[in-house]
Amino acid sequence: MTAPAGAQAGPIGVFDSGIGGLTVVRALRQLLPQEQILYLGDTARVPYGGKSRQTIERYSIEITGLLLARRAKLVVAACNTASALALDRLREVFRTPVQGVIGPGAAAALAATRTGHVAVIGTKATIGSGAYERQLQALQPEVRVTSLACPLLVPLIEEGWFEDEVTRAVLHRYLDPLQGTDADVLVLGCTHYPLLKPAIASVVGPGITLVDSAENCALAVRDLLVAGGLQAPVDRSGSLEVAFTDTPDRFLRLAGQALNLDLGEITLEQVPSR
Amino acid sequence: MTAPAGAQAGPIGVFDSGIGGLTVVRALRQLLPQEQILYLGDTARVPYGGKSRQTIERYSIEITGLLLARRAKLVVAACNTASALALDRLREVFRTPVQGVIGPGAAAALAATRTGHVAVIGTKATIGSGAYERQLQALQPEVRVTSLACPLLVPLIEEGWFEDEVTRAVLHRYLDPLQGTDADVLVLGCTHYPLLKPAIASVVGPGITLVDSAENCALAVRDLLVAGGLQAPVDRSGSLEVAFTDTPDRFLRLAGQALNLDLGEITLEQVPSR
Repeated sequence: MTAPAGAQAGPIGVFDSGIGGLTVVRALRQLLPQEQILYLGDTARVPYGGKSRQTIERYSIEITGLLLARRAKLVVAACNTASALALDRLREVFRTPVQGVIGPGAAAALAATRTGHVAVIGTKATIGSGAYERQLQALQPEVRVTSLACPLLVPLIEEGWFEDEVTRAVLHRYLDPLQGTDADVLVLGCTHYPLLKPAIASVVGPGITLVDSAENCALAVRDLLVAGGLQAPVDRSGSLEVAFTDTPDRFLRLAGQALNLDLGEITLEQVPSR
Repeated sequence: MTAPAGAQAGPIGVFDSGIGGLTVVRALRQLLPQEQILYLGDTARVPYGGKSRQTIERYSIEITGLLLARRAKLVVAACNTASALALDRLREVFRTPVQGVIGPGAAAALAATRTGHVAVIGTKATIGSGAYERQLQALQPEVRVTSLACPLLVPLIEEGWFEDEVTRAVLHRYLDPLQGTDADVLVLGCTHYPLLKPAIASVVGPGITLVDSAENCALAVRDLLVAGGLQAPVDRSGSLEVAFTDTPDRFLRLAGQALNLDLGEITLEQVPSR
């Protein structure tokens, strides 16, 4: 693949339905500090996790189109729901490379499991799609997978109840089915969930390792940049620009602090007409 | 106001961000059985409750436009968030009468309070707008109002956890501030909340009366129909048509059963371009 002249100058475009994808941005900033990153959260239509494949595909195409209009050289679907339901369609539609988070999350899980029994939590749409099972079994056919939809976790995170008895009670309800099984890895299959990592770890106990996609996704992005000759010069100092399709509320700043990200000035992008 | 010829033949259009507005539909079906009702839930962009005024206005105008394209003779914003943030704008934009749910809810609260201290619960956007305070004080200047945003209740309802210890714990967190006050009425300021009525009643105790907008809203609709000469002939047998902007999930059927509504065949409407 030959990059068009000047393509290296464009940003890495990252999208999510809301603010969860900032966990992936943090990993990208750490691994690729010379890259410019443009983050776009589709807060006007958040959440994606309870919606249909058709709607999630449409939103993902529109948001990717916005990132490409801003000259993104590579797009990261930093949203498990969009990765699970729309990644194939994005790759059919666009020539620009698109990286999802399901593949990196599955690889991280397989690297960590000893028993070969992997548990996955995510939104209703992600779990319902079966994307993690398919990806895990494609990489290791004999893996066993237990998938659990956890629709209340994103609202609890957005309420800011990170360490809270209600949150713990909800986590027990969702995760206690793993007790007594030999599952030894839990994939946080939603980019919001790392914000709840301490609570999840204390509920599942030390026998289960938590993995998320963020670091592996950043590594996959680096590989794609190298393969396409798209890397920014190493002596450049990268930056982060954050935009949303609707005014973000106070939670964004909290999340930025929790992730130790300097979000700078936040801008608004209009969702496109169709 | 003179109704155009044949206007009586159109349906009453009812919209909500999701399925909560069906509680208003039930009241309309009971009071006005001769009327045709067209319900449209904007499930492709649900929820409205955490979004900005600008976005809520835009969505409300688009959904109202869809109802008018289907020849609605009157539109009900059966969504507290849309009523709180977009009703004035809808009335500026459209000639067709638009009825909201905040006015009826406030009137129901004032009819029920003895102490003159009214509590209101709703989404972040509804409570943040101050619409209930303004409406209550317009009707009775000396009323005292305590408003509480309860963002987790809609997700809990959509998870189907109606009678559940987690739901009770969340309700205590949100509603315990009312204990020890002289508030004697609680307005369920979100059309989803009547589905949680037994749990809310047991948490706040018998000293607080729960009111919602549904019945008063149906009465206000009847008045508007009479004033506009828009009533269907009394010997007609009405019907209900239900449509959504995204595929509804299993929860819709549960809610239909809980409300004892025959939803018939569900159709999909595309959200319009802008």
